[in-house]
Amino acid sequence: MLYLQSDGSVANLLPMNGPEQENLEGSPRLYANSIHAKATELCKLVLQMTTQSGAGHPSTAISLAHIVAVLMYDHMRYDLKNPWHNDCDRLVLSEGHAVPIIYAAYADLGGVVGSGPADARPLSVDDLTSFRALASVLDGHPNPAEGFPFFDAATGSLGMGLSVAAGLALAAKLDNSDRDVYCLIGDGESREGQIAEALDFIVDHNLDKVCAIFNCNGEGQAGAVSPQQSPDALSRKLSSYGWTATVIDGHDPDQIIRALTSFKESQQPFAIVAKTVKGWAVPALLGGNFHGKPLSAGELDGAFQALDAKRRELAGEAQPVTRVSVPLATDARPPEREKIKLPAFPQVLEAAGFGAALEKKAIATRRAYGAALAALGEVDDRIVVLDGDVSNSTFANLFAARCANRFFESKIAEQNIVSAAVGLAAGGKIPFANSFAKFIARAYDQVELAAISRANIKLVGSHAGLGPASDGPSQMALADIAFFHSLATVDDGRGRPSCVVFQPADGIAAYKMTELMANTPSMCYMRTHRPDVPFIYPLDAEFEVGGCTTLLEGKAITVVASGIMVTEAQIACQTLAQDGVECTLIDAYSLPLNADSILESASRTQNMILTVEDNYGGGFGSAVAEAAARVGRIRVEQLCVRRIPKSAYKPEQLMSEHGLSASAIQSKILKLVNP
Amino acid sequence: MLYLQSDGSVANLLPMNGPEQENLEGSPRLYANSIHAKATELCKLVLQMTTQSGAGHPSTAISLAHIVAVLMYDHMRYDLKNPWHNDCDRLVLSEGHAVPIIYAAYADLGGVVGSGPADARPLSVDDLTSFRALASVLDGHPNPAEGFPFFDAATGSLGMGLSVAAGLALAAKLDNSDRDVYCLIGDGESREGQIAEALDFIVDHNLDKVCAIFNCNGEGQAGAVSPQQSPDALSRKLSSYGWTATVIDGHDPDQIIRALTSFKESQQPFAIVAKTVKGWAVPALLGGNFHGKPLSAGELDGAFQALDAKRRELAGEAQPVTRVSVPLATDARPPEREKIKLPAFPQVLEAAGFGAALEKKAIATRRAYGAALAALGEVDDRIVVLDGDVSNSTFANLFAARCANRFFESKIAEQNIVSAAVGLAAGGKIPFANSFAKFIARAYDQVELAAISRANIKLVGSHAGLGPASDGPSQMALADIAFFHSLATVDDGRGRPSCVVFQPADGIAAYKMTELMANTPSMCYMRTHRPDVPFIYPLDAEFEVGGCTTLLEGKAITVVASGIMVTEAQIACQTLAQDGVECTLIDAYSLPLNADSILESASRTQNMILTVEDNYGGGFGSAVAEAAARVGRIRVEQLCVRRIPKSAYKPEQLMSEHGLSASAIQSKILKLVNP
Repeated sequence: MLYLQSDGSVANLLPMNGPEQENLEGSPRLYANSIHAKATELCKLVLQMTTQSGAGHPSTAISLAHIVAVLMYDHMRYDLKNPWHNDCDRLVLSEGHAVPIIYAAYADLGGVVGSGPADARPLSVDDLTSFRALASVLDGHPNPAEGFPFFDAATGSLGMGLSVAAGLALAAKLDNSDRDVYCLIGDGESREGQIAEALDFIVDHNLDKVCAIFNCNGEGQAGAVSPQQSPDALSRKLSSYGWTATVIDGHDPDQIIRALTSFKESQQPFAIVAKTVKGWAVPALLGGNFHGKPLSAGELDGAFQALDAKRRELAGEAQPVTRVSVPLATDARPPEREKIKLPAFPQVLEAAGFGAALEKKAIATRRAYGAALAALGEVDDRIVVLDGDVSNSTFANLFAARCANRFFESKIAEQNIVSAAVGLAAGGKIPFANSFAKFIARAYDQVELAAISRANIKLVGSHAGLGPASDGPSQMALADIAFFHSLATVDDGRGRPSCVVFQPADGIAAYKMTELMANTPSMCYMRTHRPDVPFIYPLDAEFEVGGCTTLLEGKAITVVASGIMVTEAQIACQTLAQDGVECTLIDAYSLPLNADSILESASRTQNMILTVEDNYGGGFGSAVAEAAARVGRIRVEQLCVRRIPKSAYKPEQLMSEHGLSASAIQSKILKLVNP
Repeated sequence: MLYLQSDGSVANLLPMNGPEQENLEGSPRLYANSIHAKATELCKLVLQMTTQSGAGHPSTAISLAHIVAVLMYDHMRYDLKNPWHNDCDRLVLSEGHAVPIIYAAYADLGGVVGSGPADARPLSVDDLTSFRALASVLDGHPNPAEGFPFFDAATGSLGMGLSVAAGLALAAKLDNSDRDVYCLIGDGESREGQIAEALDFIVDHNLDKVCAIFNCNGEGQAGAVSPQQSPDALSRKLSSYGWTATVIDGHDPDQIIRALTSFKESQQPFAIVAKTVKGWAVPALLGGNFHGKPLSAGELDGAFQALDAKRRELAGEAQPVTRVSVPLATDARPPEREKIKLPAFPQVLEAAGFGAALEKKAIATRRAYGAALAALGEVDDRIVVLDGDVSNSTFANLFAARCANRFFESKIAEQNIVSAAVGLAAGGKIPFANSFAKFIARAYDQVELAAISRANIKLVGSHAGLGPASDGPSQMALADIAFFHSLATVDDGRGRPSCVVFQPADGIAAYKMTELMANTPSMCYMRTHRPDVPFIYPLDAEFEVGGCTTLLEGKAITVVASGIMVTEAQIACQTLAQDGVECTLIDAYSLPLNADSILESASRTQNMILTVEDNYGGGFGSAVAEAAARVGRIRVEQLCVRRIPKSAYKPEQLMSEHGLSASAIQSKILKLVNP
């Protein structure tokens, strides 16, 4: 709703709950004109900033000019001075390359940028010249981590935004916030299967505060968008998914605002399918392939003239819409919380129905994790859990039984799970996303975007390594450690690793690491195993990011094992000790690995290290080898999975087959010690 | 069509083009009865084999009993003695965990197993006892690589099969084979977004020889399937995608065969939505959560009795259907081909319109790749290309222009691209799948399944590393080398790496490596860069799997660089040489790295190595460090991307920011050489 100002211009005054409300009515004609006027202004800013930086996607950005003008100058409720406010409506730009149009509007409005309220400063139109510069907060694609808080997640690898929006809406529901979440999606982009996953997820959880807006400009990068993603096809598909879909002209302000009003009134998932023109009103961007191509400096004048003419044609003398920023009610940010503290391990196991493990002194790490997760849920209401139809394997079902309203069954759609977790994290939650470790690989692209977003999500993969044995290799996570190791080598820009990896060797470690993950403000990946493993650690063991623990000491060799292989290596070392070959055994349970104590140990064991892990190369062994090679005098031999496995009845058979059984480790040690 | 035998049983005789055809008509009643009789028999085999192995998914398998009986005993055209025959109809079991029902039927029919026609032997019912055993060809999930040739690709990570089926159908189209491709998909599985991608792809390419069969048993692993995947919802969705969908009772043989007949007559993509019962007719598997749970030995008797009773009820005294194997026409396998040989580099560049590069002596590796790819297409008709709406960036468009019928525009759906490539490879093609290297990460799970399948696919990712600069990190492949390095460390079971990585340092290398990939019968990943790079190699340079090339020799230090960093490192070394610091420079261009020459070089350069790459840790530097640490006297320092990048105008700025510019490399060398 817009406000006719004394100078004839039209302004929006938000929130729409003050005494001013009575004055807010402008005529529809005036409304449309003032939006047209603003849209053409924004187009100019878009052209200017992309030409100046020599890069960007002006034609796509411009196709969204009217939709963004209506959303950001009128329809959305948000606080330009405090975009962090929990009740702000959110905008997820899934087609991230269209970002110049958002930057243009946000700068024009003077919205604040910065890493948090403490260093907030308003963005100005002049700042747009820094688009894509190294020192700029205006990254090439949406990137809140670099200081643009209007966004909640990095986007640009396509198809992820609707899942992020769903996560933001779930978080709002838990907080009883009535914020809406708008998601702008490209037509070509909507070919990504993750969009279908998000459509289903949003219906399953009835997230009627999500408004999906499909920008149908008909042009992709290399050619026309497929008829399968035409406005008609999208509209048909959306209906078949249980969404209400309305097709509009995306350059008609009246149609846009009417559609958005219908969304506000809708009680079910609602989508707007907007027919738009790529490069709208800019002849130099029409009638050819101009994806990702800014105008040359020489073309700007002509483009501006065309836009001016368009403005006169559509807006007449109307002034562009402005927005008067009125702060939202005081932002009652939750107070800083103390470290999350779990009850004692025996108590947690008993509560989960795993009391027998205490006597048996053995439990699968996935079970201990599930028990810890359920306990976490009871001590902190920020903990939320997603699982993909395997909660009876990951043991996330223990959490579901106790915190049903914070458990989101997400079905077999792992990409959506990870991106929805990113949205939940942006909404202040601490999401644990669960599946078989193998199936988290389905979302590695999403994981990379989560890392860019600095999303505080916890990924937990069960049935890692050779554990699924008889199921065969399609169920085994084997390249996972290499992938996450790679992320762990990278600083996220805050002096923290962009991902922390944990691999517990026993139930006690799994329990402690679950607590540790909740208290670590970074993305974490924990890898659990299927089979039972004996307790290795005392109940009061402590663990830390990047840590490792010396379990046995000896002078023959330093054996570094991880996860379930610690048990095998321990048996090997204990057996050898009976024959007088005493080895040091170190449990390397976290990446990025602080290898100091390992290297120190090696210097006491003839500079010889053997690493043992149940995954492909590039994992813990690699991390140890890298550290050793930096020093240069230490030899590192690696045992890991060196052939694609096949099925076998029991994990033990596979360990043996791949040279990872206790006795194989034993032989290897002997060979190294007595060459 | 079925054949009434003299003993009263019903047999199918295929192919249906002989004089026997006149005798083929059985009555519908007899047909249904004989299928029911066979289905119950197969159910028994499923129960027995899963109970014996103590693992597997009998309830899911049984829900497919009738569909599989109709397909494998009647409807499908294939040669039990020669499943490799190109004209055999194919069956892709996307819900891989249902595999026992296929094994049961195939063993009952005596289909052959083995790694190829030379070692083919018929499977017997007795062999079913080996299900999931280490020595068995009957892996826990479909796995052709271990000797079960009825399948074309490993499945089990869900949602991939329909894309594989599409690839098989595309290959058939190119070969003018009229084979059909049946794909069995779980209802819960159909939540995976990749299914939506495949549905679109199949419509875009009008692959009317693909029959998608959705097995709607309503039960997932942890709970009921979402209403979003109910038969009604799936049927609605399929129609909205442009498919013809028919809903049937999946335990009614008449309905099944009628639906399959409709498929044969259909001119558009056709799906059967089959309502089934998980654990059909086995009380011990009904009314609870029995996913992935075999019966105990004690439960078998009761289950058999229930199945016998069901058989009497449904089949009366009818004999189970049998199948008489009649060989297909002689399998005119294409003769072994000679090594693919490209025309000379200058000629290839000229043909691509890149002749100016020859004078400039510089070209981007992605351009050289595109030129080579187009040339490859002209010299070998097995070369096919998929691209995801970025062919004007990857330069796959050069191939499209010359070999339009073998170029498959796949739009923005990378998961489908990789799995469709697996299908094309199974159909005898050599598919090159292209996208930005970053977006290939979208399909790493599919890549892992391709590795298990030993699929001869070529993945080529452009715009790797920091090259996209101003676009920001969402467009940069940075964890890719670590991921593929991990796969490269693993033997595929044939003594070959499960993936070979290539990273060309210049246009000549890119051209040669493209040819080399086409001649390497393994999955390959090539990483190309966006910016122009000068020619480093002579025109007659040769490259090999795992190879590296010494470009400069000196005694100060061994510098190992890869890809675009070779140019930077070369400048650094040449500058230092002017000051008398002479370095050895090695281009490590392939993984798994044969590091012998690098280690040898190090022994001549004070045992000091510096690695330089434009990706996160875990890549080439890691491979060198691992090799060095195995020896133990050599020091390895690594330069790579250590912080998540942000946008900058130019790649050079980012290289400088991340310590990877020529001058940063120079400083680093000096520090190492004069500590």
